[in-house]
Amino acid sequence: MRLILTVLLCAAALTGQTNPAALAARHWRMQHEKAIVTEFSSFLAIPNIARDRANIRRNADAIVAMLAKRGVPARLIQEPDANPVVYGEIRTPGAMRTIVFYAHYDGQPLDPKEWLTPPFEPVLRDKSIEKDGRVIQLATASVPLDPEDRIYARSSSDDKAPIIAIAVALDAVDAAAIKFRSNIRFVFEGEEEAGSINFGRILQAHRDLFTGDVWLICDGPVSQNRQQLIAFGARGVETVDITVSGARRELHSGHYGNWAPNPAMMLARILASMKDDNGRVLNDHFYDGIEPLSETEKRAIAEAPAPDADLMKQLWLGSSEASPAKLFERLQLPSLNIRGMASSRIGAQASNVIPSTATASIDIRLVKGMDHQLILSRLIDHIRKRGYFVTDIPPTSEIRMAHAKLAMVRTTDFGYNAVRTSMDLPISRELIRVVESARGPAIKMPTMGGSVPLEAIERAVQTRTITVPIANHDNNQHSFNENIRLQNLWDGIELMAALLTM
Amino acid sequence: MRLILTVLLCAAALTGQTNPAALAARHWRMQHEKAIVTEFSSFLAIPNIARDRANIRRNADAIVAMLAKRGVPARLIQEPDANPVVYGEIRTPGAMRTIVFYAHYDGQPLDPKEWLTPPFEPVLRDKSIEKDGRVIQLATASVPLDPEDRIYARSSSDDKAPIIAIAVALDAVDAAAIKFRSNIRFVFEGEEEAGSINFGRILQAHRDLFTGDVWLICDGPVSQNRQQLIAFGARGVETVDITVSGARRELHSGHYGNWAPNPAMMLARILASMKDDNGRVLNDHFYDGIEPLSETEKRAIAEAPAPDADLMKQLWLGSSEASPAKLFERLQLPSLNIRGMASSRIGAQASNVIPSTATASIDIRLVKGMDHQLILSRLIDHIRKRGYFVTDIPPTSEIRMAHAKLAMVRTTDFGYNAVRTSMDLPISRELIRVVESARGPAIKMPTMGGSVPLEAIERAVQTRTITVPIANHDNNQHSFNENIRLQNLWDGIELMAALLTM
Repeated sequence: MRLILTVLLCAAALTGQTNPAALAARHWRMQHEKAIVTEFSSFLAIPNIARDRANIRRNADAIVAMLAKRGVPARLIQEPDANPVVYGEIRTPGAMRTIVFYAHYDGQPLDPKEWLTPPFEPVLRDKSIEKDGRVIQLATASVPLDPEDRIYARSSSDDKAPIIAIAVALDAVDAAAIKFRSNIRFVFEGEEEAGSINFGRILQAHRDLFTGDVWLICDGPVSQNRQQLIAFGARGVETVDITVSGARRELHSGHYGNWAPNPAMMLARILASMKDDNGRVLNDHFYDGIEPLSETEKRAIAEAPAPDADLMKQLWLGSSEASPAKLFERLQLPSLNIRGMASSRIGAQASNVIPSTATASIDIRLVKGMDHQLILSRLIDHIRKRGYFVTDIPPTSEIRMAHAKLAMVRTTDFGYNAVRTSMDLPISRELIRVVESARGPAIKMPTMGGSVPLEAIERAVQTRTITVPIANHDNNQHSFNENIRLQNLWDGIELMAALLTM
Repeated sequence: MRLILTVLLCAAALTGQTNPAALAARHWRMQHEKAIVTEFSSFLAIPNIARDRANIRRNADAIVAMLAKRGVPARLIQEPDANPVVYGEIRTPGAMRTIVFYAHYDGQPLDPKEWLTPPFEPVLRDKSIEKDGRVIQLATASVPLDPEDRIYARSSSDDKAPIIAIAVALDAVDAAAIKFRSNIRFVFEGEEEAGSINFGRILQAHRDLFTGDVWLICDGPVSQNRQQLIAFGARGVETVDITVSGARRELHSGHYGNWAPNPAMMLARILASMKDDNGRVLNDHFYDGIEPLSETEKRAIAEAPAPDADLMKQLWLGSSEASPAKLFERLQLPSLNIRGMASSRIGAQASNVIPSTATASIDIRLVKGMDHQLILSRLIDHIRKRGYFVTDIPPTSEIRMAHAKLAMVRTTDFGYNAVRTSMDLPISRELIRVVESARGPAIKMPTMGGSVPLEAIERAVQTRTITVPIANHDNNQHSFNENIRLQNLWDGIELMAALLTM
């Protein structure tokens, strides 16, 4: 045992990984790989779509039990009409600071038909599905498990992985009798994928429980080159559905084609007017007010590796949207993305009709300095400038007849703004040091591409947030066949051990 | 009996409806309304989607039986891999001409979930579904039936209505002992909604059966003001699916949004580039070669009523596509119509992804002088000019990586050209006279909006075609809840009686 630890220490020291808690976590994990996968699989088997209240409650109860098993007192914080927040706490006598670990236990909505195996029946595969990975049986697999194995299930990466990683890290820290130095708080949300609509309200109702020097946001993927990443900010988000109306019913495209307005074509024209061929958004004032990057932030981006060429190969892309701009540069800018589009039917289901309506669902990612409500009203202005009457409710026949061009624009109230914590703060510098002692050189991103409800957190409890992800980038997050690569889970356990004991 | 006929004659004479066969048909129908609806309902209850070979055969057999019951020898004409054509013949000694009646017994593909009542379980409603029409029981309904009643079922209008109308007209002509003056041929196709892909081949294989001085195409709706319509041509059609590729899989719109190309946006830009805001197609050479209208044709359009204002009210439209141009004018031009569009998901199913592909299904309606294959190649040229590599098979990873912009363009081989018969031919003038003697003043359209495989017929048997529709315009043809208004069916029976005895 002592020998193994010594070997580990020597190997890790060569890559700068000298954090004792991280090494203790590696040692513990190597002794318990199958038990970890088994515990995680049970957790993933509980369906976790935010609107499925009964199963959401089962998830929350399971997390309370996971923490209690590690001697961490935990409980549910409940507010009317909201999914419970799981709250846990480690009080450390004499600690000078409080670190809050945030993750979410709900998962993105899904269509089970798209999944190769059911989303809530976790399986282990010997590699990714894209590489024809086959299901393997944990019971008969040899140990150590191949670190390229992957667990497939909804939320295996996003965002139950950090929760299991924290639980296992607690086991390892305890086994190695490493002392905590900070007060630790755990906050596990159950509505993040539903836009965290109640989270700010819950935080405000229980402010004292949630304060801390920093919130560590345990969510999202590491870099595409598998290098550890620290994100000091996240983009905000606003989603909106645009529905253009034509005739009240589908029309025969022969008898009316060239006379009746085609809402699919009208929608295409609206969408095309919003972006140029080089990925620049054309809506007036879209880029107004964006807060410029500091010198430290610019340097961090310049130093970050460029996974672009590799990524393009993996994704079968001939070009990025605004080539030759780098991925990490592009994520520091806002985006306007069509996430779905529908009008009548295509392919074998298509028939010769003029559609009655056409809808596009759009998400806008914002960076610091932009306001999501203002962006939405400017998007509506953009549509109005193209001659449309814009409504936010299904239009009556009178409204339809009164306007040659009519669009219904609806948002979901999920929107929030971007945040960005300065890399020059003492807590930021200390965090970089600890992370790199556990995981080697890390990529420091001013703003990561994804969105987490950090603004609501920062505003509600007057704190700052820094994001420490663990998932593999190719985890199919938010889509079907979501997975986590075992090596990422192992690395995540080590990272959490280091952060818990900082 | 004689009295009723006399009253009918007087009433009809006031509107110019003096055709004896048409009046005999009215008399017969008034005595047999329930029996007619019952026979038609049994016919509509046989599913008739072209790819459903077993039921298609049942339909064909049913039509043979319907004709045989009226003493018309009928049989199936079968070619390998094609749905049978039902063929029937009335030989008239001394006849100087042969008139061929064409209709099709197959129906548009459908999604039963969209129908208020099952598409192959015909029901009678007291008015249209749009006006909250309720199902009524034929057995207990009082006679005469309300002519505003409608029969709901797939193909109730398109295109089984002319078949039952011909059958009933044969009963009436026989009962009134009216003599035939022409040789009559019946040709009922079973693949029209599948693009008539085998019809030309069948005609050529049995040319002698199919020759005639004129083919009367019994298909399509009458005018929106319910006035009888004669169409001397029909638009051609070409359909094409355009699929733009992005990354090989859906990507998280946060982690990749602003970097990965969005195929939905790319598709929107392609589509928007194809049409201006006034409905004019922008593809180069799209309008080249169109045959101009004759003076007679121009006059016919000028004389036709303009149902536009009424139609816009019925359809809840604030404007037509190229206002103030009239519907009938617009149908003399080609159209480019998006009949369906899809990319990832919308509404409650939407998730924050960048779609992997986006597809639009397009139909192009052609007028005389345009070639459907040329139009397709020009559409591909249009996409290429926008920087796309165009393929007609799903692209390999290598192809995807080699091209920044990639579109798959697939057609269905259903396309055919438009045809137009001169209104100045003696047979055209005679037909107008007979139709108006049965149905009063008729609208004469050089080209109707819909497409029927008339080119294949004209080429295969060196004849000409004229279309005599009977359905109501608001029949939901090609969509769900297809129906026929009883008055249109009654009028159709009278029209067919007049045409059968011309």
